[in-house]
Amino acid sequence: MHMTSTERTDKALRAIADSGAEGARIFTQVYTASALAAAAAADARAAAGITLGPLDGRIVSIKDLFDVAGEATTAGSKVLRDAPPAEKDAVIVQRLRAAGAILIGKTNMTEFAFSGIGINPHYGTPGNAQDVTRIPGGSSAGAGVAVARGMCEIAIGSDTGGSIRIPSAFNGVTGFKPTQARVSREGAFPLSFSLDTVGPLAKDVLDCAQTDAVLSGQTWQPLAQRAVAGLRIGVPRGLLFTQVDEQVLAAFEQAVAALQSAQARVSDAALDDLLSAPFRLQEKGTLIAAEAAHVHGALLAAGKENELDALVLSRLRRGETIAAPHYVAVQQARAQLQPQLDAAIADFDILALPTVPVVAPSIASLDDEDTFHRTNMLVLRNPSVFNFYDLPAVSLPLPRQAGAMPVGLMLVGKRNGDRELLAVATALEQLLQAQG
Amino acid sequence: MHMTSTERTDKALRAIADSGAEGARIFTQVYTASALAAAAAADARAAAGITLGPLDGRIVSIKDLFDVAGEATTAGSKVLRDAPPAEKDAVIVQRLRAAGAILIGKTNMTEFAFSGIGINPHYGTPGNAQDVTRIPGGSSAGAGVAVARGMCEIAIGSDTGGSIRIPSAFNGVTGFKPTQARVSREGAFPLSFSLDTVGPLAKDVLDCAQTDAVLSGQTWQPLAQRAVAGLRIGVPRGLLFTQVDEQVLAAFEQAVAALQSAQARVSDAALDDLLSAPFRLQEKGTLIAAEAAHVHGALLAAGKENELDALVLSRLRRGETIAAPHYVAVQQARAQLQPQLDAAIADFDILALPTVPVVAPSIASLDDEDTFHRTNMLVLRNPSVFNFYDLPAVSLPLPRQAGAMPVGLMLVGKRNGDRELLAVATALEQLLQAQG
Repeated sequence: MHMTSTERTDKALRAIADSGAEGARIFTQVYTASALAAAAAADARAAAGITLGPLDGRIVSIKDLFDVAGEATTAGSKVLRDAPPAEKDAVIVQRLRAAGAILIGKTNMTEFAFSGIGINPHYGTPGNAQDVTRIPGGSSAGAGVAVARGMCEIAIGSDTGGSIRIPSAFNGVTGFKPTQARVSREGAFPLSFSLDTVGPLAKDVLDCAQTDAVLSGQTWQPLAQRAVAGLRIGVPRGLLFTQVDEQVLAAFEQAVAALQSAQARVSDAALDDLLSAPFRLQEKGTLIAAEAAHVHGALLAAGKENELDALVLSRLRRGETIAAPHYVAVQQARAQLQPQLDAAIADFDILALPTVPVVAPSIASLDDEDTFHRTNMLVLRNPSVFNFYDLPAVSLPLPRQAGAMPVGLMLVGKRNGDRELLAVATALEQLLQAQG
Repeated sequence: MHMTSTERTDKALRAIADSGAEGARIFTQVYTASALAAAAAADARAAAGITLGPLDGRIVSIKDLFDVAGEATTAGSKVLRDAPPAEKDAVIVQRLRAAGAILIGKTNMTEFAFSGIGINPHYGTPGNAQDVTRIPGGSSAGAGVAVARGMCEIAIGSDTGGSIRIPSAFNGVTGFKPTQARVSREGAFPLSFSLDTVGPLAKDVLDCAQTDAVLSGQTWQPLAQRAVAGLRIGVPRGLLFTQVDEQVLAAFEQAVAALQSAQARVSDAALDDLLSAPFRLQEKGTLIAAEAAHVHGALLAAGKENELDALVLSRLRRGETIAAPHYVAVQQARAQLQPQLDAAIADFDILALPTVPVVAPSIASLDDEDTFHRTNMLVLRNPSVFNFYDLPAVSLPLPRQAGAMPVGLMLVGKRNGDRELLAVATALEQLLQAQG
C-alpha cells in the first residue's frame, strides 16, 4: 500500500529512535521538525498533482561533511564543532531541497573522511547494519548503515578512495561514484581536491540514477534499457583479485556464471600494469595524503593534533613529509595514464570485480594499529584505483543467504559514461535479483 | 620595394652570417637549406596567386625548446644534446609549417628556460641587440635579439614568468604572452606545467596577432579597431612600481601623459594585495621550482648536475626541498585568487605598467651569484604576476632616443580576452609611434 511522505518520514524517524544508542552513532544530526515539514509539503504537492521530479518526497540523508546554512560542518571531527557556521547550503543540498527531497539528517563518517574503515572515536562507530559488532565501512559509514536499516531511502556520500562503495558493499546496498566533474563539490568539506567525488547510496540503481540526476543538475530522463546478452564485461584478474576471501570470491564467481548463462561476453582483461600503477607511483606518498595535509595544515600548526583520531593524525603526518616534485610527478603520470586505461578498456562495456576483497571485519579486530592500517589499505585498494583513473563505478549487492555478510560487485564504466554505466548496472541488478 | 620571400630569407641568413660569433650565440640551429626551400615554395604560391594566410612566406624562428622531428630538443642545455631525437614536430611547428611560414632556425635560451636574464654557459650568451655587452633578457634570449637584429621577422618563444616579455622589453621588440590554454604546449620542453605559455615576439602587434592566430589554430580575422579616447587604463602603482629605474619611469610616465592627451581614462588601480599575493604565497617555494624539480628529477638522480649551469642547478635544488602540502596550498590559493583579480579589474580595459623595472644591465655586472639572483628576481617580478593569474599580456617598446636602451610597456588584458588585448595594444602602438 502506498504510504505518504509523512508516513514514510515518521517511519524513518522511528527507525532512528528505536535503534537506541546506535542511532546517535549513525546520525550526527537528525532534522525531525524540518523533515516533517518537508514531508508535509511533498504530500500537499502530491495532493495537488504537482511533482518536483523523481526525488520529490524521497527521504535523503547527507554525510556530515556537507554544509547546511547556520550549522558548523564537523566532517566527523571534534575539533570542527567550534568552526564558524556555514553561510549557505552546499550546492548539492540546495539541489536536493529544490528537488523536493526530505533531508532527514547528517550521517556519521570517518574523521575528515580519511579511512575506508568507518571507525570514529569522537561520535562513536556505527555498527554494520547486518552485524553491529562489525565495521560499517567508511568513510561514509553512517550513510551505508542508514540506508540498509531503513533510516533513510537515499544517502549522499563522498568517495575519494572508495568511501561510497565500501560502505555500500559492507552493508548490502547500492552505491554510485560518478566521474569527478559530474557533481559540484562546492560546500563539501574537502579531503583531496584531485580525487573527491559526490554520489548516492540507496537500495537500488534506479534510486542512485535519479539522485545522480538531481546532484548533477540534470533533468531526469529514464535510462536506456540494456540487455545482458552480448554485454562485453572485462574481469581484471590480477592484483585486484589477490587477498580476496573465499566468501567474496564465491559470490563473485557465481555472479560471473549467471552473467555467462545470460550470454554476457565475460572475458579476462589484462590490465595489471595500469591497475597497479597507482600503487607503484604513490609509494613515496599519495595525492590524498599530500592534499589532506594541506587542508588540515592550519589545524596541525595550531597544535590541535591531540584532539584528532590518532589513526587519522598519523596519515596526515605522513602527508606533511611528501616532497612537491613527487606530488607533481604523480599528477603528471596520472594525466598520462588516464587515456591509456581508456584505450585499454575501449572494447569492454564495463569492468567487473569485487568492490572489496573481504567482508566487513569485526570492530574489535582492528584495535591493533598495524592491523588497522593493513586492513584499511586492503579495503581501499580496489575502489581507489578508479578514483585515480576518475572512472564512474557502481557497487551492487550480490545475492546472499539470510544472515550472511554482504558482498559488493563493482562495475566500472567509461570516463563521463556515467549514465551508460547506470543503464548497464540496472540490467545486471535485475539478473542478480532473479538469481538471488 | 616589395621583396620576395627568397630575397628576405637570403637577407635574414646574411644577417646571421654577418654577425660573426654573435650569430652562433643567438641561433643554436640555422635551417639554411630548408628555409630557402620553404621561401621558394612561398614565392611560387605567391606567383600563382595562392596564399596560406598571413604567415605565408614570413620568416620565423623557434625557441630551442620546441620539437623538430629528427632532432634532439636541447632546451639550451648541454646534457640534452644526446637526448633521443624528437619523433615529430611540436604542434606549433606543424601549424607554422602548414601556414607557409619559413622556419629559419632555433634560437638560444636560458638552460631549461629557468631564468629571466638570458645567460647561457653552454651555447654562449647572445649580446643585447642594442648593446652586446648587456644581457638579452631571457629565457627566450635569442628570440628577442634575432627579431631586433632582423635575423627573423617573428620569433616563437615561451613565457613562464616573463620569458617572452623580458627579452621583448630589453631588445626593443613587441612580445605577446597569451592565456595559457590558448596555445598547445605539446612538443614544447616543459619548465612548469602550470605556468608555461607559448607566444610570439615580433616587430609589431599585428605580426604578433597574426602569429597568435596560427599558433592557436584559428583562422585569421582582422582585429577590431579600438580608439584610445575613452579607454579605461588601470595603473597598478605599488609593489610593481618599486625599484623602477629613472629611465624606465620617465619613459612610462611619458607614455601615460600621451595616453591622457589622447583622452584615455588613466587611473590608479589599487590592486597591491592581489598583485603581491604570488610573492607572499610562494615564499616557501614556487610552483615553477617544484615543477621544474620534477621535470629534471631523473637528470639530477643520474648525477649529471655538474653539467648544468650552476645558476639553474641551485634553483632546481631549491625545488626539491619544497613540501607537497605547500605546493597544494599555492595551487588552491591561485585558483581562488584568479577570479578575485578578474573582478577587481573588471572596470578597466587593460592594466599598464613597466614590463621590467630596469633596462638591460651589463653581462659583466651579473658575475656575482647574489647579484644574479637578485637581478633575476627583479626582472621576473612584474611579468610573473600575470603568469600566476594567467592573464594575457603584451610588451610594447616605448619611444626612445637613438642609442638609448629599450624600455617595455606591459599591457595586461582579461582572462581569455587575448584578441581584445591585441586590439587595444594596436591602438596604443599607433599612438606611441606617433609620439616617438
